[in-house]
Amino acid sequence: MTPRSSSSSSSTALLTDHYELTMLEAALRSGAASRRCVFEVFARRLPDGRRYGVVAGTGRLLAAIEQFRFGDDELDQLRGVVDEATLGFLADYRFDGDIWGYAEGECYFPGSPVLVVEADFAHGVVLETLALSILNHDSAIASAASRMTSAAGDRPCIEMGSRRTHEEAAVAAARAAYIAGFATTSNLEAGRRFGVPTAGTAAHAFTLLHDDEREAFSAQIAALGKGTTLLVDTYDVPTAVALAVELAGPELGGVRLDSGDLLVQAREVRDQLDRLGATDTQIIVTSDLDEYAIAALAAGPVDRYGVGTSLVTGSGAPTAGMVYKLVARTDDAGVMVGVAKKSKDKASVAGRKYALRRRNARGIAEAEVIGIGQPPDDDGDDRALLVPLMADGRVVDDAAVDLEAARTRHTTSRAELPAAARRLQRGEPAIPTTYLDAE
Amino acid sequence: MTPRSSSSSSSTALLTDHYELTMLEAALRSGAASRRCVFEVFARRLPDGRRYGVVAGTGRLLAAIEQFRFGDDELDQLRGVVDEATLGFLADYRFDGDIWGYAEGECYFPGSPVLVVEADFAHGVVLETLALSILNHDSAIASAASRMTSAAGDRPCIEMGSRRTHEEAAVAAARAAYIAGFATTSNLEAGRRFGVPTAGTAAHAFTLLHDDEREAFSAQIAALGKGTTLLVDTYDVPTAVALAVELAGPELGGVRLDSGDLLVQAREVRDQLDRLGATDTQIIVTSDLDEYAIAALAAGPVDRYGVGTSLVTGSGAPTAGMVYKLVARTDDAGVMVGVAKKSKDKASVAGRKYALRRRNARGIAEAEVIGIGQPPDDDGDDRALLVPLMADGRVVDDAAVDLEAARTRHTTSRAELPAAARRLQRGEPAIPTTYLDAE
Repeated sequence: MTPRSSSSSSSTALLTDHYELTMLEAALRSGAASRRCVFEVFARRLPDGRRYGVVAGTGRLLAAIEQFRFGDDELDQLRGVVDEATLGFLADYRFDGDIWGYAEGECYFPGSPVLVVEADFAHGVVLETLALSILNHDSAIASAASRMTSAAGDRPCIEMGSRRTHEEAAVAAARAAYIAGFATTSNLEAGRRFGVPTAGTAAHAFTLLHDDEREAFSAQIAALGKGTTLLVDTYDVPTAVALAVELAGPELGGVRLDSGDLLVQAREVRDQLDRLGATDTQIIVTSDLDEYAIAALAAGPVDRYGVGTSLVTGSGAPTAGMVYKLVARTDDAGVMVGVAKKSKDKASVAGRKYALRRRNARGIAEAEVIGIGQPPDDDGDDRALLVPLMADGRVVDDAAVDLEAARTRHTTSRAELPAAARRLQRGEPAIPTTYLDAE
Repeated sequence: MTPRSSSSSSSTALLTDHYELTMLEAALRSGAASRRCVFEVFARRLPDGRRYGVVAGTGRLLAAIEQFRFGDDELDQLRGVVDEATLGFLADYRFDGDIWGYAEGECYFPGSPVLVVEADFAHGVVLETLALSILNHDSAIASAASRMTSAAGDRPCIEMGSRRTHEEAAVAAARAAYIAGFATTSNLEAGRRFGVPTAGTAAHAFTLLHDDEREAFSAQIAALGKGTTLLVDTYDVPTAVALAVELAGPELGGVRLDSGDLLVQAREVRDQLDRLGATDTQIIVTSDLDEYAIAALAAGPVDRYGVGTSLVTGSGAPTAGMVYKLVARTDDAGVMVGVAKKSKDKASVAGRKYALRRRNARGIAEAEVIGIGQPPDDDGDDRALLVPLMADGRVVDDAAVDLEAARTRHTTSRAELPAAARRLQRGEPAIPTTYLDAE
């Protein structure tokens, strides 16, 4: 048994809705808390017009579940929320169930069971809020990021949205964007915590701090070398570009444009740089870019895209809208039975699901096949999507939480989708979700 | 001098963009880092169609600035990002400047200088990312929340969006919503960390866990008492309401509706409850509510609104879009001079601002008056908006970080706005922003 900690600093246990614990109390009293349960996380639909979603956050979630412990601080806080018996249960809480899920970076569709949690009710119900917070946020960011890297093609995307979202969400957003193909982040904590490569240029404040642009550029080059990227739109762009090349020569790493008509300016700046012999100097564009702006700039001589607000806010879809639903539980005889809510507008499918990506002979995805019971015989073209993540409360395999593996996996998963998946216009999911019956 | 900590767990220093530190390095080398600077945080515009914004996050920001320290862990991470001289500066870093701002809970408008930071460049520039992350997130949530509590009138709003946003953003969102008038939150960590009152009902999983609704309701009432709120839309609403009153009697605290046409259902349920004698039993509605849905439900017999997704995503505006701009700095002679970027689409106003809320004789706000230099003589109707928050790096006054004070302040500040501020339809800011010249 794990020693009980009196420190609360790293516990994730209170990142939880009040009602999870009052439901726990009621279920402990009624005895139903010990029923074996299957909870599934899925999105009823994709954000309006999106062709696919991207699962992200799984690695963070598994780490957070390992820190889901109620120490003295947490228990003190809960006195008055739940009774003593429940506090006693929580004091010893340690997730001891099994978890399967879509591997991080995998694409998902409406109904995809991206996480399956099996445990008794008591151990499973309390994870609802934490699981959804992490998966809904990180998947929303990764899903938007994937559209951006898809639109950018071979040109690197730089994540720089930290200032436009909660300070800790920013760290998670940098990680999710990296999974979906972003090259670097501006967020230093994402570098420390997750090993995401960090990079940066300079702000207008740096130019304005100095008496003129010459002084500012000279100072930056002196400190950071000629390979640095100079911000050239504080006053007049052509003047700044000429000055930048005068000071750094053709070894100048890059220039950044952060305002105005980026397509027109990029062309003018490219011409100017080339005329000045700085043919290797890169052009980095920023300024409220989203996937549509990136696509529109494909026609221009742009080398790198810096993306901020639109990335960290999910480009119009800041949450993935996933839910955590009880789909099966044992009865008094110990037999697992499917359960589902009957409400007209929020009906669910009862029973534990399997999930397959059906592919044609050329390896292109054709359908998300979801069913209850035994999966159909694999004819070689189906790909099973649920992988084991935790067994008896322990992470099964480090690959399940490896960031580079998730990044590679996303590239592969996206490449397998039909071409329609890459369309930015609103439309239907790139592949249909097909439900198979148990028989 | 503060002792240097080798622990990094509570440091906020790396919640920072890479370029803040490389700019610092360059400015330390050029000598410009010691120039006295004034940075201002403001939003160029409100989110599309909004009538006012609400400042939130100030209290969190001041606490985060006190934790902005570079310990051994942070410095190790930065080796390779910046040079040794810069690491040496950061090792001793402790914000030593002055900060003024709009008090938390205050309403703001386009151009309002919601935060003013005065320090040398080195001490001021590194706070940009952290300040914006916190203010942009928390103000976005509070701004949306204020529209919801305004639409709800005297009926309490319950914050329950934790599952639809990043797990730490959820805690901050609960705090921001409370400032803007929400009565309670579902988030237990917000209860612990900030003292926001927590509350909760039950989920469909609890009903589905049991063999039938009778068993589930009985278990909940046995554990939580007759004053609990029962979720009545898992199967059939009239059947569940009848059962709920049968089991709890007229002391039943409340019933929750989470699907379907809430206005129609609330009326039917109210009739049924009244017929059964449960005239004091409350009706709580949830299910993707936003300020428009709340307003539409004003006509119905609803007692409390539970708001989730729409609250934590800022109801269409997940970030406040505030920027942190250098507006003045000393020159070589030590004279403070205004500075501003010249770009067409992102021009700023140079110079340190004052800000007043101009009010008419009846105390109704008429304009946000922003100017450079000396404010006009107060005729008694102007209200100065900038209050001291930090002096020499220390929090000036605990009132500046007091949550209850911020909540009260918001009520007062919103009540002072003209009636148009309460319109939910898209429109212009409720009062115009007027810039006065220095003369």
